[in-house]
Amino acid sequence: MKRSNQTGSVRRAKNAPPSRPTIKDIAQQCGVHPSTVSRALSSASHHLVAEDVTRRIRAAATALGYRPNITAAGLRTGRSGLIGVLAPDIADPSFPPILGGLAEILNAAGYATIVVDVGPHGSPQELVQQLVARGVDGLVLASVKLRDPVIKHCIDMSIPVVLVSRTDAGRRLPAVVTDDEGGIALAVEHLVALGHRRIGHVAGPPDVSTGVLRRAGFVASAAHAGLSTRETMIESTPAYTRLAGRSAALRLLERNAPPTAIVAANDLLAFGIYDALAALGLNCPNDVSVVGHNDMPYVDMLSPPLTSVRIAHRDMGEQAARLLLERIAHPANRRDHIVLKPALILRGSTAAPPR
Amino acid sequence: MKRSNQTGSVRRAKNAPPSRPTIKDIAQQCGVHPSTVSRALSSASHHLVAEDVTRRIRAAATALGYRPNITAAGLRTGRSGLIGVLAPDIADPSFPPILGGLAEILNAAGYATIVVDVGPHGSPQELVQQLVARGVDGLVLASVKLRDPVIKHCIDMSIPVVLVSRTDAGRRLPAVVTDDEGGIALAVEHLVALGHRRIGHVAGPPDVSTGVLRRAGFVASAAHAGLSTRETMIESTPAYTRLAGRSAALRLLERNAPPTAIVAANDLLAFGIYDALAALGLNCPNDVSVVGHNDMPYVDMLSPPLTSVRIAHRDMGEQAARLLLERIAHPANRRDHIVLKPALILRGSTAAPPR
Repeated sequence: MKRSNQTGSVRRAKNAPPSRPTIKDIAQQCGVHPSTVSRALSSASHHLVAEDVTRRIRAAATALGYRPNITAAGLRTGRSGLIGVLAPDIADPSFPPILGGLAEILNAAGYATIVVDVGPHGSPQELVQQLVARGVDGLVLASVKLRDPVIKHCIDMSIPVVLVSRTDAGRRLPAVVTDDEGGIALAVEHLVALGHRRIGHVAGPPDVSTGVLRRAGFVASAAHAGLSTRETMIESTPAYTRLAGRSAALRLLERNAPPTAIVAANDLLAFGIYDALAALGLNCPNDVSVVGHNDMPYVDMLSPPLTSVRIAHRDMGEQAARLLLERIAHPANRRDHIVLKPALILRGSTAAPPR
Repeated sequence: MKRSNQTGSVRRAKNAPPSRPTIKDIAQQCGVHPSTVSRALSSASHHLVAEDVTRRIRAAATALGYRPNITAAGLRTGRSGLIGVLAPDIADPSFPPILGGLAEILNAAGYATIVVDVGPHGSPQELVQQLVARGVDGLVLASVKLRDPVIKHCIDMSIPVVLVSRTDAGRRLPAVVTDDEGGIALAVEHLVALGHRRIGHVAGPPDVSTGVLRRAGFVASAAHAGLSTRETMIESTPAYTRLAGRSAALRLLERNAPPTAIVAANDLLAFGIYDALAALGLNCPNDVSVVGHNDMPYVDMLSPPLTSVRIAHRDMGEQAARLLLERIAHPANRRDHIVLKPALILRGSTAAPPR
């Protein structure tokens, strides 16, 4: 390779186009070998260089406006420093706290995150393909379905992957989730303690682990509380949206013996239950109690404030990040499955049933 | 470079470690020159290759599991395909719709976004430096302050940058913003039409364009409506948080002649005004009317539903993405400044003042 500067001077004519200074430029300016510059600028190896030399080299790098080329460094080390994150819906207010936990741990370890919104019609496999083509060092999937071909795709590519919030049916990849069944049980026990017997469930999508497990948790805890199947009624939704929650709630409330309380599989569905109650002229909690799930930011400001199952969002993100870093460091085929404990936050949307 | 496969066969022993197929493997399989494969696989140049050959090459690439190495391609073309986005607070529910608009346009143009949360104590310059070191092709800054050293930093590096939602005082970079002054004027005109004369403003941070411009809009529109400075009162906040809104509102409401209506510089501040009213046992809107700004998702579900200035979030993100793509294609020093029109959404938090 040709030396770019034969005179040994690194100054450039004022009107010349700006050219990116290289390690060689710094080496020439300081009168040291380029490899010394590399070591001095690396946080991993600057202890190999005398302190005053490191200081001189770093000052020269700053003066020259040197920027390390991480893309080139990535090609040498085989690492890009990028982690891909697939989100089901970035506008869902439950997601930012998970992302906050993920980013904090990953950034501290020198990784940046590329967040991609899968959306209702996106192809997760195609998105994973694109992220892998960008050389991501690992993936966090917050969007998997129970039977998701993206799981096998990731296993086949043997790329480090951690699932967060949702799992696949086969549990073939490490995951950090909330105790979906236990969370709904807290909600059902609370309603039964208030005196409710006819309890409805607006279930989440049947192709997603949270939808299936929360539904299973509803059935099991209702049976455990001694409620008959006639007293417990379930309506499913195709998506975690306010609109889907509204129409499922309308189906529950228009039955002959409607429920006096409804447990939603997530807060956005609970918003739709509020809409359905308003449409029917029913009062919450006097006519019907409502419990949400996720305890999204600001649900305490609703009318009435929403009783909801709080999940450890931030902790979930942090633990997923740590699992992924472990997996990148030691690409073993372990399938850690971390289940976090939820808590029921009592607010104004639940009360005793009407007499 | 050594040919990896002298036999011409691309099949590998079942138990051999998976090796990444290359363009040469596809070329051998199809009996064409590697440059033909490159062209056929590129959306920019496949028209140079006969259609049936392109189809055959793409089928072979899929069968072999070929993945383009975008990192390596980036080093050749000088492009990474990455856009860095600096957000002030990713957990602010106003941000995801902006990000949604940005991502849609940028993804369609083949770019992925790296979203970084600056947070209250982060250094935007350091984050920009890290993003530039990762070779981002451009930056979207949603986090700038009025006098922000990051502006000069970006100009010095001559990297394509677009500001969104906020601007710097010197307007030295292209930006897409909402009409901050016009939005507040809509709120003040609405309150004056309802009969309010004593109107308060919970202003945003004085070091951020939205804080300053919305405050200026409040002063100008109140004067235009014939209100005296004695009738209009302003309390500033150090940050767009619910807690800061609460204490500013308490300061307004504990005056000798408190306001009968309060205009907040954003919805999170309005949440704090609701908290202050509840703490003082005052009813909204019977005792005090409240207007928010941004029309965040789900403010229609608050008690009472919040009247708020709706800003064109998604449009803002889309237009910023388009400006950035233009800037990347034609790195001219234009300073486009796009101002989007807001709208006032009337809900239950505003009514006539108490008699």
